[in-house]
Amino acid sequence: MTAVSESGSGNGGQSVRRRNRKHEVLEAAIEVFWEKGYADASIQDVADRVGVLKGSLYHYISSKEQLLFDILDHSHAQGIEIIQRARLVEGPPLERLQRFIEDYLRWYLRNIKRVSVYFSEGRYLTGERLTTVRRQQRVYDEFVKELVVEAQEAGDADTSLDPRLLTLFVNSAVNGVSTWYRTGGRYSPDRVAKEYAALALRTLRS
Amino acid sequence: MTAVSESGSGNGGQSVRRRNRKHEVLEAAIEVFWEKGYADASIQDVADRVGVLKGSLYHYISSKEQLLFDILDHSHAQGIEIIQRARLVEGPPLERLQRFIEDYLRWYLRNIKRVSVYFSEGRYLTGERLTTVRRQQRVYDEFVKELVVEAQEAGDADTSLDPRLLTLFVNSAVNGVSTWYRTGGRYSPDRVAKEYAALALRTLRS
Repeated sequence: MTAVSESGSGNGGQSVRRRNRKHEVLEAAIEVFWEKGYADASIQDVADRVGVLKGSLYHYISSKEQLLFDILDHSHAQGIEIIQRARLVEGPPLERLQRFIEDYLRWYLRNIKRVSVYFSEGRYLTGERLTTVRRQQRVYDEFVKELVVEAQEAGDADTSLDPRLLTLFVNSAVNGVSTWYRTGGRYSPDRVAKEYAALALRTLRS
Repeated sequence: MTAVSESGSGNGGQSVRRRNRKHEVLEAAIEVFWEKGYADASIQDVADRVGVLKGSLYHYISSKEQLLFDILDHSHAQGIEIIQRARLVEGPPLERLQRFIEDYLRWYLRNIKRVSVYFSEGRYLTGERLTTVRRQQRVYDEFVKELVVEAQEAGDADTSLDPRLLTLFVNSAVNGVSTWYRTGGRYSPDRVAKEYAALALRTLRS
């Protein structure tokens, strides 16, 4: 981003405003899909939430399905950032896995509506968009599996366990948080992040 | 059930036929909701699957939402049977928990479409029906938590772990199977049931 675009003048400024508005549309759509479910929600609902006419939303999105895809795609990009940070961490694989799960769950719980939409509405995508999202989901599973296999090779995780089943078990446990977590309830995000990471390690430690 | 009703004659016979037809309607609805999703499915789709006119379905169900509720309610009744069998088993709590998870997952994987509908479509219920299903879901969590607490009291499970978080972790892992399992794929139902039960025990054992 250049200084010109940040100052808000010229075409760069238009582009920043456009990005901000697109961001606003996506955040509104997350709220709407979370409340009504994707199937029952309409572009009109999203327009009402943003406070603009429905027609002007089509400057930012081409269809309701594209809007859902953009939400999932942006969420994936955020998840990838957490994975990339985790790749820079040094230390034994189990320690890296523990830290990754903690970081991931902190992000997840700060963005619980986004994450709930990700997990419960993604199945409404079709064709190329569905294929893309399924491929993206595998990146997360593959990263955790890599760490599990590394831990097994280092003798820190039980080698009698099937690494794929172990990965699926742990990832389902972690990603299931959106089904029960209530913001402001009994457990703080920090506590869930820490205890869940510790439970995952118990499951696979040798 | 009396001998008369089983022979198919008289009012008893009508009632058996009615029950059989209702069973057939529910099984067809599971297929339809599983394939299209509840929101996009119609009573017409279910009638087409059963091979009857839409009007005649209303002898067995009052609405699409009632149909979804009946599927979830019957599924819950089947789950309760597994819990009741588990309550009759004697032995240390961890052994009973292991056996319960195995039995539950064997039923779950034999009925994967029903279970997928249970977990992914239940949120479309409203009002009293939603309240009932949420109350039913807690029975499963409460049963697992009871065993976890018993295991902690017996010194077999780590008492430093929060029994509720532990229960949610294990139950999310187990109930997440419907998101990745493919019938006829790499893992047999028996293998998933056994390995998952063993993984759950690893997570909580002291």
